Amino acid sequence: MGPQEKSSQDKRLTPSNQIILGGVQRAGQRLRMEEVMVASPGAFQVRLKIVCSSLCHSDVTFWHLPALFPMIFGHEAFGVVESVGEGVEEVSPGDLVVPSFLGNCGDCTECRSERTNLCDGAAIHNFLGVSSFAEYTVVDVSQVTLVDPAIPPEKACLLSCGVSTGVGAAWKVAAVEQGSSVAVFGLGPWVVEGARLRGASTIIGIDLNPEKLDIGKKLGLTDFINPKDIGDRPLSEVIVEMTDGGADYCFECIGLASLVSEAFASSRKGWGKTIILGVEMRGEPFSISSAEIMQGKTVTGSVFGGIKAKRDIPILVKQYLDKELRLDEFITHELGFQDINKAFDLLVQGKSIRCIVWMDR
Amino acid sequence: MGPQEKSSQDKRLTPSNQIILGGVQRAGQRLRMEEVMVASPGAFQVRLKIVCSSLCHSDVTFWHLPALFPMIFGHEAFGVVESVGEGVEEVSPGDLVVPSFLGNCGDCTECRSERTNLCDGAAIHNFLGVSSFAEYTVVDVSQVTLVDPAIPPEKACLLSCGVSTGVGAAWKVAAVEQGSSVAVFGLGPWVVEGARLRGASTIIGIDLNPEKLDIGKKLGLTDFINPKDIGDRPLSEVIVEMTDGGADYCFECIGLASLVSEAFASSRKGWGKTIILGVEMRGEPFSISSAEIMQGKTVTGSVFGGIKAKRDIPILVKQYLDKELRLDEFITHELGFQDINKAFDLLVQGKSIRCIVWMDR
Repeated sequence: MGPQEKSSQDKRLTPSNQIILGGVQRAGQRLRMEEVMVASPGAFQVRLKIVCSSLCHSDVTFWHLPALFPMIFGHEAFGVVESVGEGVEEVSPGDLVVPSFLGNCGDCTECRSERTNLCDGAAIHNFLGVSSFAEYTVVDVSQVTLVDPAIPPEKACLLSCGVSTGVGAAWKVAAVEQGSSVAVFGLGPWVVEGARLRGASTIIGIDLNPEKLDIGKKLGLTDFINPKDIGDRPLSEVIVEMTDGGADYCFECIGLASLVSEAFASSRKGWGKTIILGVEMRGEPFSISSAEIMQGKTVTGSVFGGIKAKRDIPILVKQYLDKELRLDEFITHELGFQDINKAFDLLVQGKSIRCIVWMDR
Repeated sequence: MGPQEKSSQDKRLTPSNQIILGGVQRAGQRLRMEEVMVASPGAFQVRLKIVCSSLCHSDVTFWHLPALFPMIFGHEAFGVVESVGEGVEEVSPGDLVVPSFLGNCGDCTECRSERTNLCDGAAIHNFLGVSSFAEYTVVDVSQVTLVDPAIPPEKACLLSCGVSTGVGAAWKVAAVEQGSSVAVFGLGPWVVEGARLRGASTIIGIDLNPEKLDIGKKLGLTDFINPKDIGDRPLSEVIVEMTDGGADYCFECIGLASLVSEAFASSRKGWGKTIILGVEMRGEPFSISSAEIMQGKTVTGSVFGGIKAKRDIPILVKQYLDKELRLDEFITHELGFQDINKAFDLLVQGKSIRCIVWMDR
């Protein structure tokens, strides 16, 4: 997510790469096309030619944050290895890869542990993110995962962030059990898909946007609640009633302190787990009732759905190729690179789930 | 924990039972001896002759609460079955048992699930607690666990609440792993014993009372922090430094909102678990940083350490008889029934860990 630097030494390798830069002067400014030079890959770095990106909510979140500009957005992508830096043995030019904002170096304490996906090793080499709204980008080798060429680029692209985060939350973080009840607050469609894959029998979607009901139904939602439709009743009361005691797993996909508390209150006494995926809070605290947590409830958070990119993304690719994991249903729009701002509009207006942005169109 | 009722019909069965009643007029009043009649056991109830009790912090907590009087305190005990009500087949007069405030009916959804110990079935028969500061008491059959007569009464007594709660928190709720680091906030000595049994390699005790250091050392504490000794440094900063990143498991044994937040901040990024055992908050909310929970941290609460009395107390008894679980170390004082108020003084002043109150002395 960091800015690319200009480097006059690199003209040979990357002639005139056209790159989009987010609002230079202020947050939320329309993105504009600019030509900048992309640095050649340093030690343990890989330069990718981006094939396509898709716009994720986190791009919009950071787009609204001040003091991070200039910035090249985009982190959910698919690309081809164009060149590699010193020490890179894992991939070679021509390899098809999915970049991920969270590295997986394989060497650090965290990567060697089964208990977390929060790689601590990538930062040793490089602090850069992905910046995939660009023809070329340079990322740390810990941030690229080789994928089976049988998967179409726009499908693999979704595994770069959103789908992995949502499916991973149900799979790795919550370990949703067969026959259980799940409530998804702020309808993250990939959590619904993850819950279905894990065999949940009740999947309740909660969203203010009724359009999300349609995609939700396709994915296996059994119930849908629009908070506007329940009058003065607390959401948790409605869910506790629907699930005869509370949902076994509550996923909060926005990151709103009040919604986290409501999700927690909707979880089942005895073993209810609340999993926070949403990042909108950006560090703000939320409040939990001690009386309720003493009833055996749990609240946990995760980044990237507990997914270790290099270990788990290939599993998701195989699940897609085996027709277990669905990805096609998430792609609601496709645009060319020049129309990138339209992708922002569609997402901000709640009209798209994922809009694929093709670099060559 | 509910009051016993007078019943003239029961004179035959329980002649003149001498019973202690906690302050009738106001919270915190000295306990006084009174003679009341104990009801005969109703359907699915058991009347126990209490052999000994020990004073638990929860007795003191509830002793200070208004509007619960008159009350017979005491819930950590050991007794003999004196008579049984209709439908009781599990125990017979003469059986040695440990009562527990949390039932384990074996029939409800909760009892049949491996995921919780919060029995929902006991309330169907009886809302009464234990009230063991009395020669006789009546409890629901779901609240008594048969124990191997080889265990001495005062040792079995400790399994009735405190030890089970603390050891259970490390065993059932946290599932502490071999070689891990543990921090115990508000030194619950049984959590230390539980962590040692589970093979933790670092066990840090945090307490304002330096006297707890001695008992803690005997039990396997590797480090002790008195918050008074660290100046202006936040406790979490000290613990994160000591454990090179944060403790794998943080146990909060008081139930103080600020201490819960500090315990959470002391837990390790990636997989740190904070387990709340303390009940002092009585429902007050506590605050959690969303930025920290998104680093893969978890906070969870439990009652009675996740222990299902009838399944797990016999295991703890066996561990004691096999010299794995230590219990003798927790008994710092022993008194006769008439000196019950001294047991309160010792605990309130932080001088005792457990004071056994013998009914026949």
